[in-house]
Amino acid sequence: MSLDDPDDLGARLLAGERRAAARLLTWAEREDPRAEAVLRAHAARLGRAFVLGVTGPPGSGKSTLTNELVKRLRAQGRRVGVVAVDPTSPFTGGALLGDRVRMNDLATDPGVFIRSVGTRGHLGGLSRGTSLAVRALDLFGCDVVCVETVGVGQSEVDVIRVCDTTLMVLVPGLGDDIQAIKAGVMEVGDVFVVNQADRDGAQRTAREVNAMLDLSHAERRPPVLLASALLGEGLEGLWGAIEEHRAFMGDPRDPASRAAARRRAGARHELVGLAQRRLAERLAALRLNERGEAPLDALAAQVARGALDPFSAVEALLAELGLGSA
Amino acid sequence: MSLDDPDDLGARLLAGERRAAARLLTWAEREDPRAEAVLRAHAARLGRAFVLGVTGPPGSGKSTLTNELVKRLRAQGRRVGVVAVDPTSPFTGGALLGDRVRMNDLATDPGVFIRSVGTRGHLGGLSRGTSLAVRALDLFGCDVVCVETVGVGQSEVDVIRVCDTTLMVLVPGLGDDIQAIKAGVMEVGDVFVVNQADRDGAQRTAREVNAMLDLSHAERRPPVLLASALLGEGLEGLWGAIEEHRAFMGDPRDPASRAAARRRAGARHELVGLAQRRLAERLAALRLNERGEAPLDALAAQVARGALDPFSAVEALLAELGLGSA
Repeated sequence: MSLDDPDDLGARLLAGERRAAARLLTWAEREDPRAEAVLRAHAARLGRAFVLGVTGPPGSGKSTLTNELVKRLRAQGRRVGVVAVDPTSPFTGGALLGDRVRMNDLATDPGVFIRSVGTRGHLGGLSRGTSLAVRALDLFGCDVVCVETVGVGQSEVDVIRVCDTTLMVLVPGLGDDIQAIKAGVMEVGDVFVVNQADRDGAQRTAREVNAMLDLSHAERRPPVLLASALLGEGLEGLWGAIEEHRAFMGDPRDPASRAAARRRAGARHELVGLAQRRLAERLAALRLNERGEAPLDALAAQVARGALDPFSAVEALLAELGLGSA
Repeated sequence: MSLDDPDDLGARLLAGERRAAARLLTWAEREDPRAEAVLRAHAARLGRAFVLGVTGPPGSGKSTLTNELVKRLRAQGRRVGVVAVDPTSPFTGGALLGDRVRMNDLATDPGVFIRSVGTRGHLGGLSRGTSLAVRALDLFGCDVVCVETVGVGQSEVDVIRVCDTTLMVLVPGLGDDIQAIKAGVMEVGDVFVVNQADRDGAQRTAREVNAMLDLSHAERRPPVLLASALLGEGLEGLWGAIEEHRAFMGDPRDPASRAAARRRAGARHELVGLAQRRLAERLAALRLNERGEAPLDALAAQVARGALDPFSAVEALLAELGLGSA
């Protein structure tokens, strides 16, 4: 039995072997086709984990909060996975914060599996790496997988599509820009928490968030809680609110449940993203034209110098792939 | 002559008619095919404007800084466009901050054209709306187009690809998460400025940014400046640094220049994004199967319930479009 073989690795993963999980996550991160092979082989075992998104603006203390929630889950004997989506340079592709930096006190707990995922590439890169890692931890038997993202805006939206429940972490005293961001991602949060609630202005921020949520037309009004991850305050109530949302969404195995509908929407989004990624690969691999130029580069050069508009260029590009005008 | 007709509108736009520009921007924002028609017709006139990206974390005062830079450009008699990329809900599609809210003191200047662009849709939405608006203002004869983005991470990367020079705005006293973000987007900035430099810790933040830039292997080390947009300090030096970078990049009309190479890379990225968007439209429009289901929905449902892995599903989806395995 070898960890280099997807079949063997799959068997050892299902048997709960930690090294097998580590290897699968590494494959997932490197986009090794063997990661896909393992997930293909065990598709029927996927979807058992509860996937919790933890998101919010930079500096809101998401890592510390996630850390505290994971500790509580561990105290209940649950196996927990954490996928930390690091902001990385799309140019270098490297993760900035290693796993070592995060959540040191959990690093030696065999019931916790923490992995950082880079945001390699641009379009769909984040959601693909994240969903591969989430699936790997799901297959490994994690009861709960926390997906923590740094950043505001696009990231939140990509994250919610793989999460069953999304926790939006805010902090007291947010500026003008944050006002806009809060509103922009309002629909992304299922549960809101004002972290660092011992700081001035926590109540005010909670009131402001509540006022904004009053304007929303969502089926369920998200609760707004106060907590301090550092002081360990408000965490029981926070987990209770998360569990309440989970109950509201229902059992994802029931196709009529809200949870199942959300997972279907997530899968739809993921499939489109994967298809777009495959398209980009095909475009980059198109055979050279008679002048030895890659069609994509040749058309881009024409657009850049104003010899062609981008809309005509993309039609020419799709025609090269056999995807002419519909 | 009617503003509803792309041909007439194009002529009136090139003649400098402000209403024509407003109409074109509205078409661009609504993704009206007439916006594409105008840009197609006048592709050869595109690419004259200098496109300046202004980006950085929330709360860094980007709008105020942009405002001050625009005032200085106006004092030199240059026609200026501003595209403000607002964080909007991908679910509602609405822009949060109207044009009225921003830069009130410039709103009545006929030499300035300000437009907010929503980040409608998900993949590629931001960069497409932005680049359409930039092209419209370019065609209108703006000498400089400033593209201001709120947000950190993905947005910066999309923005740089349509910008000739990117200004990274930071503020004193950044938290842990921001440390990571700064490094992650380090390669995106051509010029760095610590805004609100009258606040404590400005020098320290500048030193930290400099220390990080020392680790970079870029061809040119970006300068780090101090400024206070509110107090009007450091703005001459800042504009000087922007002009220096512009000179370093060379004339975009010279194919051998760095500026031209950057624009080609931007066009390449844009074409891939446009092609991916067309693909998503085709996938959503696939004809129903024998059970009356959309193929994308049917496959997503199978993936969501674990009956199929996403990789096999996407192959089936691409085969539906006639894009079988390469």
